[in-house]
Amino acid sequence: MTMKAPFQLLMLLGIVFLASSVCVSSRQHDQDQENPFLFKSNRVQTLFENENGHIRLLQRFDKRSQIFENLQNYRLLEYNSKPHTLFLPQHNDADFILAVLSGKAILTVLTPNDRNSFNIERGDTIKLPAGTIAYLANRDDKEDLKVLDLIIPVNRPGQFQSFLLSGSENHQAFLSGFSKNILEASFNADYEEIERVLLEEQKKDPQHRRDLRDRRKRHQSEEANVIVKVSREQIEELRKNAKSSSKKSVSSESEPFNLGDRNPIYSNKFGNFFEITPEKNPQLQDLDILVNAVEIKEGSLLLPHYNSRATLIVTAVEGKGEFELVGQRNENQQEQREEDEEDEEEGQERSRQVQRYKARLSPGDVFVIPAGHPVAVSASSNLYLVGFGINAENNQRNFLAGEEHNVISQIHRSVKELAFPGSAQQVDRLLKNQKQSYFANAQPQKWEEESQRKKGPISSILEAF
Amino acid sequence: MTMKAPFQLLMLLGIVFLASSVCVSSRQHDQDQENPFLFKSNRVQTLFENENGHIRLLQRFDKRSQIFENLQNYRLLEYNSKPHTLFLPQHNDADFILAVLSGKAILTVLTPNDRNSFNIERGDTIKLPAGTIAYLANRDDKEDLKVLDLIIPVNRPGQFQSFLLSGSENHQAFLSGFSKNILEASFNADYEEIERVLLEEQKKDPQHRRDLRDRRKRHQSEEANVIVKVSREQIEELRKNAKSSSKKSVSSESEPFNLGDRNPIYSNKFGNFFEITPEKNPQLQDLDILVNAVEIKEGSLLLPHYNSRATLIVTAVEGKGEFELVGQRNENQQEQREEDEEDEEEGQERSRQVQRYKARLSPGDVFVIPAGHPVAVSASSNLYLVGFGINAENNQRNFLAGEEHNVISQIHRSVKELAFPGSAQQVDRLLKNQKQSYFANAQPQKWEEESQRKKGPISSILEAF
Amino acid sequence: MTMKAPFQLLMLLGIVFLASSVCVSSRQHDQDQENPFLFKSNRVQTLFENENGHIRLLQRFDKRSQIFENLQNYRLLEYNSKPHTLFLPQHNDADFILAVLSGKAILTVLTPNDRNSFNIERGDTIKLPAGTIAYLANRDDKEDLKVLDLIIPVNRPGQFQSFLLSGSENHQAFLSGFSKNILEASFNADYEEIERVLLEEQKKDPQHRRDLRDRRKRHQSEEANVIVKVSREQIEELRKNAKSSSKKSVSSESEPFNLGDRNPIYSNKFGNFFEITPEKNPQLQDLDILVNAVEIKEGSLLLPHYNSRATLIVTAVEGKGEFELVGQRNENQQEQREEDEEDEEEGQERSRQVQRYKARLSPGDVFVIPAGHPVAVSASSNLYLVGFGINAENNQRNFLAGEEHNVISQIHRSVKELAFPGSAQQVDRLLKNQKQSYFANAQPQKWEEESQRKKGPISSILEAF
Repeated sequence: MTMKAPFQLLMLLGIVFLASSVCVSSRQHDQDQENPFLFKSNRVQTLFENENGHIRLLQRFDKRSQIFENLQNYRLLEYNSKPHTLFLPQHNDADFILAVLSGKAILTVLTPNDRNSFNIERGDTIKLPAGTIAYLANRDDKEDLKVLDLIIPVNRPGQFQSFLLSGSENHQAFLSGFSKNILEASFNADYEEIERVLLEEQKKDPQHRRDLRDRRKRHQSEEANVIVKVSREQIEELRKNAKSSSKKSVSSESEPFNLGDRNPIYSNKFGNFFEITPEKNPQLQDLDILVNAVEIKEGSLLLPHYNSRATLIVTAVEGKGEFELVGQRNENQQEQREEDEEDEEEGQERSRQVQRYKARLSPGDVFVIPAGHPVAVSASSNLYLVGFGINAENNQRNFLAGEEHNVISQIHRSVKELAFPGSAQQVDRLLKNQKQSYFANAQPQKWEEESQRKKGPISSILEAF
Repeated sequence: MTMKAPFQLLMLLGIVFLASSVCVSSRQHDQDQENPFLFKSNRVQTLFENENGHIRLLQRFDKRSQIFENLQNYRLLEYNSKPHTLFLPQHNDADFILAVLSGKAILTVLTPNDRNSFNIERGDTIKLPAGTIAYLANRDDKEDLKVLDLIIPVNRPGQFQSFLLSGSENHQAFLSGFSKNILEASFNADYEEIERVLLEEQKKDPQHRRDLRDRRKRHQSEEANVIVKVSREQIEELRKNAKSSSKKSVSSESEPFNLGDRNPIYSNKFGNFFEITPEKNPQLQDLDILVNAVEIKEGSLLLPHYNSRATLIVTAVEGKGEFELVGQRNENQQEQREEDEEDEEEGQERSRQVQRYKARLSPGDVFVIPAGHPVAVSASSNLYLVGFGINAENNQRNFLAGEEHNVISQIHRSVKELAFPGSAQQVDRLLKNQKQSYFANAQPQKWEEESQRKKGPISSILEAF
Repeated sequence: MTMKAPFQLLMLLGIVFLASSVCVSSRQHDQDQENPFLFKSNRVQTLFENENGHIRLLQRFDKRSQIFENLQNYRLLEYNSKPHTLFLPQHNDADFILAVLSGKAILTVLTPNDRNSFNIERGDTIKLPAGTIAYLANRDDKEDLKVLDLIIPVNRPGQFQSFLLSGSENHQAFLSGFSKNILEASFNADYEEIERVLLEEQKKDPQHRRDLRDRRKRHQSEEANVIVKVSREQIEELRKNAKSSSKKSVSSESEPFNLGDRNPIYSNKFGNFFEITPEKNPQLQDLDILVNAVEIKEGSLLLPHYNSRATLIVTAVEGKGEFELVGQRNENQQEQREEDEEDEEEGQERSRQVQRYKARLSPGDVFVIPAGHPVAVSASSNLYLVGFGINAENNQRNFLAGEEHNVISQIHRSVKELAFPGSAQQVDRLLKNQKQSYFANAQPQKWEEESQRKKGPISSILEAF
């Protein structure tokens, strides 16, 4: 008995310990996350996958880190389908902004009295407003279709539902949610006919369903799925009357626009920067979103800059490279401090140590650049990035190096003296050393020889963080 | 003693069990809530009640279910008063959209330099901006006045306060909140006079107050209350210069507009659908609200449809009927999954089973139709519904059956083949079977006989869910 | 053993007690907070302080009380600097609205291709959009510079970061966050030069850094800090081309505007009320903010009024006085009730007891006036207040006493009879007793003698709450 009591005490302590250890470990875990700004391609959830394609949804930004609280109502989705396939009709309780990454598609958008089909390809972007019934065909004979979607849910922050018009075993048609009585009255027809013509045969007896499932597993029967094969003839019907993205303007209310149709906003031999802002396009206006595409040539650098108010969600589409983002150290401690602020009314001074967040980029990786945070991106092979910017209206991109558009060079001489260790003259001379703007050589010739002696070829700068 | 130790162990386990059972039961409880979209008339809190009328506030939407997170700043209030009564002057820290359900009233709205009185009756709608001092008289000799208010608080999400100019025992006048010094200086008068003329005699000694309370309980003295009786002469004064709702346009900045003044947007012999959208009325514009009124005739059906981006909060005003709403199964599990998403990076496929939510409607019942969710409503007796829609701008109503405005009929032939089990020809034939649009016979003649044989008269379709 | 078991039982109970007592005490604590609307000058956190000035941040409103949930994305900052000092260049991930409280400054705002300098002084207000690099000099020879900033973060609710272009030991320059490789490629220069000219010498060996720190502690070396001394010549360079606040209009897109340039909206011998609303100024429009300045003369009173939809955050700049604010009693209980509402479907009537919140004001105190809440402010010495109003569009100020603009006087005669204990005639006579509007004598002559007999001189009305 004397042993039992201590044992019970231990159990008591055990409860307390368990409770506190949960708290500790979760905080520990957060601190271990080396780079919250990077989402490697494994941070996705597969919503659908068959032999014709797949749909993958990136982890919620706000679940990754509290620093992305302002991204809680944004999701990023990647759609991938094989040649001659169709994503069947459906609508969502979310606004979608589609950007075609590669391939050639026909997108059909339905309205109650009409339908519009569009030929879309790499660089084409279009908004699908919430509730729009649409379907998407890969019209190419060889190339996969890759589409990136920024999703802005209308019902629940960060969550959305897809309503499929056609059913399968795992994905019921939403019409089958109505009762027999409602369906019969709505279609003025016998339920058997409605079931036979519109709904999947899913109401059959369990044995039948099991048989069906087995059969489908073997045959991968197409009608059981969300992405199905289509014949050349079927694509021809879709292509009829399909419009291409407006080449003249990017300001259409409902037609796709191509990121590359306008001149790049920044361009030289090291790279090109294309951007459509909400001011330029009415589709992006009410959502306050910008879309951009950036090409950085092999061995080049997108010079250090920051966005004044937009937060960018950038996907590496092709090529390899590296990004560096400058933030504040000890985010978590600062958070904690904020939470504890009431105890801190004495007011101790906050130290502000900057922190470098650095990571290699491969196709499929996503990174987030919060407003105000300086960033630079270098390419070890031709790098193609597509970005969505939220809070985009009146966003300004301030460069911190380069000949033009360099905000540092605007500082008064006397303030340069006070702000920097060098004299104003030294600062000006240094700022004028870079003759390029926006994009530059990531390994300037002048320094190349010396660097290579020290560090080997260009790829050696791309160390993992 | 050997018994005590296990007992203590049991107690220990008890704590753990208690803790976990709370979690389980709350989740269990949520799953038990058979239909979160329906608010029966018992889900209200009475804010005020006397012999002249009552004020009732519907439960917070977001407290009912997490799926209504986007409704957290909207409340629904029902006001009911007897003939020849007045709701005394007050203001609120919330915007109100009033819709008269029945009866005849005079609404007076004060501004610092003016006042405006309006004769309002069934179908009349007006916005009372936050902070507006207003009073409302039932000017009819016989009919009760029923008003429905959508409330959008400005200070705290989902919470609002009423500031009463006139006090009673339970509802102090807000002027009595100022100190004697401030009141004397403000009114340039002696405090006794201010108290005698403007404030209730509530500052008297406790014994006096007790007497007063007893006396009031016996006599139900009117001046002690928020809704009071008014004489015919007093109503005459209010009626003077009162304007009626603008018959010409629904676009006034501050005057009431009648839902029925414009032509119905959908109409046939089975029903009528009236709607004022933010695009049509400046009062609804900044709040992004729509208001509608739907009449469904006995034995008729509002055909299956969904709202592309608006969420509708609908009140059954008169008649009986039934609604069916299609959502996703296992909302709660999905929620849980969302929360656990970080552990799920392996990415398992989500199944999407549709769920039918079905309920009988009686006067006073409220139901919510989230954006994108298909819904159908049938009437077993003439049914009159009034709805407020949030997130209303650019909302589109997509019908899923009926001859006109049927989004399914716009699908390409080849896609119909792929999406539905029937051939495109079968699908088209089925879609053309319904000759009505928007509203139809809930028990089509063709099927009536057979159905009645199987199921009895029309009322039998209205089984509780 | 018979003692141990009860002991263990006590421990068990102890856990339960501990758990519940935490809840109780936190609630207790809230109820103890006598006046959540007042933030005395100790509720600040010092972000920076040296011999040249300091930067202080007010506690988060929403951490103080749940009633300020709608203020969660607003922060208030106070900047103070000595004559001939400069706040070095930096940008923030937040919009700032600056209001100069006293002193004379030169504000320089950088754009990628230009810079603008402004002479600003007391009453001048300007918006610094998020991400703007700016620096601020106190150009006066004698007077301290005091600036009040309303801060609206763009990344995280209620939290913002400053990015400093120039570094010191405790506040690193953000450029030092980039790697050697990125900096060398960006500036096309050797890292040693970049470090020497642009970055602080913080990468030196630990011993050197320790020496440096010691030296700085002794000498308070200026370049190590955020606010530094500037020479008269340096100020002259800044002053060159500096514009003054636009005297003609308050509607500039980017230039400062002075609160006092327009006629006061309310004015008499007892006080002046200046206000710039979002309708009047494009800089305030997208943030939906108003800025006002109120002078209340010694012994005067700003008459009881409420704001229809704006919530005001008011700082006492000079003088002493007192405010009275009328709210609802038992906020906390009401909150709790709201949370428990689901259990309350029986619907018990809510009692509405008004509560007076009263406090003395000294320079540096901040108070919040939520929308709809009546307030009055009296001055025991000339009082100067500066306020920021959120949710400001279409805000209306309704006065409850005074000759003009008095909303109570608009009530129908018959309703006055019903609403107040006095007759309509008595009410009208009382309302007409105050000949002043907006501002009045806090100690009217008529009552002065009597009051003084009872209560002593004017200061005696200013009792602490």
